[in-house]
Amino acid sequence: MEIVKVLHMNGGMGDTSYANNSLVQRKVITMTKPITEDAITQLYCSTLPKSLVIADLGCSSGPNTLFVVSELIKVVNQLRQKLRHQSPEYQVFLNDLPGNDFNTIFKSLPSFQKKMSSQSGAGAGPCFFAGVPGSFYGRLFPTKTLHFVHSSYSLQWLSKVPEKLEGNKGNIYMARTSPPSVLRAYHAQFQQDFSMFLKCRAEELVLSGRMVLTLLGRRSEDPSSKECCYIWELLAIVLNEMVSKGLIEEEKMDSFNIPQYTPSPSEVKSEVLKEGSFSIDCLEVSEVNWSIYNNNDGYNVAQCMRAVAEPLLVSHFGEAIIEEVFSRYREILSDRISKENTRFVNVIVSLIKKE
Amino acid sequence: MEIVKVLHMNGGMGDTSYANNSLVQRKVITMTKPITEDAITQLYCSTLPKSLVIADLGCSSGPNTLFVVSELIKVVNQLRQKLRHQSPEYQVFLNDLPGNDFNTIFKSLPSFQKKMSSQSGAGAGPCFFAGVPGSFYGRLFPTKTLHFVHSSYSLQWLSKVPEKLEGNKGNIYMARTSPPSVLRAYHAQFQQDFSMFLKCRAEELVLSGRMVLTLLGRRSEDPSSKECCYIWELLAIVLNEMVSKGLIEEEKMDSFNIPQYTPSPSEVKSEVLKEGSFSIDCLEVSEVNWSIYNNNDGYNVAQCMRAVAEPLLVSHFGEAIIEEVFSRYREILSDRISKENTRFVNVIVSLIKKE
Repeated sequence: MEIVKVLHMNGGMGDTSYANNSLVQRKVITMTKPITEDAITQLYCSTLPKSLVIADLGCSSGPNTLFVVSELIKVVNQLRQKLRHQSPEYQVFLNDLPGNDFNTIFKSLPSFQKKMSSQSGAGAGPCFFAGVPGSFYGRLFPTKTLHFVHSSYSLQWLSKVPEKLEGNKGNIYMARTSPPSVLRAYHAQFQQDFSMFLKCRAEELVLSGRMVLTLLGRRSEDPSSKECCYIWELLAIVLNEMVSKGLIEEEKMDSFNIPQYTPSPSEVKSEVLKEGSFSIDCLEVSEVNWSIYNNNDGYNVAQCMRAVAEPLLVSHFGEAIIEEVFSRYREILSDRISKENTRFVNVIVSLIKKE
Repeated sequence: MEIVKVLHMNGGMGDTSYANNSLVQRKVITMTKPITEDAITQLYCSTLPKSLVIADLGCSSGPNTLFVVSELIKVVNQLRQKLRHQSPEYQVFLNDLPGNDFNTIFKSLPSFQKKMSSQSGAGAGPCFFAGVPGSFYGRLFPTKTLHFVHSSYSLQWLSKVPEKLEGNKGNIYMARTSPPSVLRAYHAQFQQDFSMFLKCRAEELVLSGRMVLTLLGRRSEDPSSKECCYIWELLAIVLNEMVSKGLIEEEKMDSFNIPQYTPSPSEVKSEVLKEGSFSIDCLEVSEVNWSIYNNNDGYNVAQCMRAVAEPLLVSHFGEAIIEEVFSRYREILSDRISKENTRFVNVIVSLIKKE
């Protein structure tokens, strides 16, 4: 299995980027391709910029890091040929937290640029890359300097663990047994973070600038719905078992919560409308079955979740318990995967910057 | 001794950035401060940009990396307060080769930005950082997007070892015993590289945009002058000794040459006039005594030169000889430093982008 990126952690408990499993990520990028292509086409035709400035927020560091960007540039390159326009120059900003491995991305750029320019053919404009370290829950770029923002599997990560989760004992995320106060705290943190994200991008984008955002989400209006919470509930089962065996302190378990929120399409829509800077071109939901991982033994899903969860677990519980946690998690995952039809749900939204 | 940056290798035989000794670098930055301040002041007053875009080319990775930028921003901040203007936003591009350690720079940014914003006081515009990997002997930025370019101790590095150095047996750089063809080959490579640098920056800078460039150079019009070549001649003596002892193959020694050119002010001037995009606001020479290293035992100068030369030596001769080379080099340096008044010469040029 190709190990790369599924989920990207921005802010929250760690400050690294979490390079994860590429299969889901690549699948999601492919599924959102028509939406992305449509957005960049409209953008190019409505603004015809001499320099087209693209930002990928939460770019991580792996084979998918440059994939979206190269697809976007391909579309524009075909368009400008069809329209017989002179090619724009491209400036691409790759953003992630300061702990992301930018060195590895940068070392891969010369060969990537070579390949890209040979594919683009004569007359294609040069493409200039830059890395931008920092949280996308704050400003990252000067005012009105971006044309296109892309973010995939990053915005479900909150800027921090919500406050007032004391009532969430025995759980590590929103769960069926979480009290309403916990669900409210999670939702409030999402609202605060996502609207801050929209506000910052609204300042950075030019008029008619575009964003295509893909978040891990849910279909249901119930934030403790199985479709988004189940995978964390299974991890909570493991941790609770280990508490009962005396391997983890109960207090430690009680204070551990995942800084994530997987919104429904209507929650995303509501924040966009409330913030007011963007109109919605398109809002969709798609699914990826866990069985994309090719077998039912739970190993691959566990590996993927490990890439996401390990840094959070290590920073809270320390290194010592990790192997035991994931060995148990793998077991429980294989049991459930063989019996149930489990899926990741994605919310995709395409936005246009208004006056 | 604080080990950071003296000489920056761009292109040439390696593709890493060479983080070296900060003492000389910091001293040079301090010496060029009046020139840099004057340039940024004129730039700000003549263009009054809403977003001021600064690029540091060959930024390396160490305590000096952010020092120049913070000085530039301080100047603008004082100016805008004095003039009662609204502060510009700042965008800072830190460039070096893809092998440079950008991760370390990026991790230091949050605390740097915090410190800077507390020093700048109320009303100061935000400062956005980005890392740009690539050789400055090619385009790095879109057309007309930069206001100010700074480069210190990087442009003496050539894009590659010049061709046709066969006549340079026994030497590793230009030397008193180098034939004219070798001196010509070095000079031609410098001309080609430096004019390419000017051409690229001319495309990237806005009208009235500014550059302040500091190169390791010489006062003399003789390119094999002791002031710039002596330090390499001493290294050549070491390598020749080791050839005669059978520790290094003669052929290997003959094919080793340093990809550097230390120009005179008039050579710099001549390339600027020939290329034609810039007018010269100021062209100066300054010196730093080797004894800045605080003692006369040669150890510190040798350490500094090791940071510069080791990657070149390793890639050509392999790891095995390195300790022996630098132990001998240290010895010969302490001998000469105690007897002679040896200096680094710097050429500083401040340029204005013409119509």
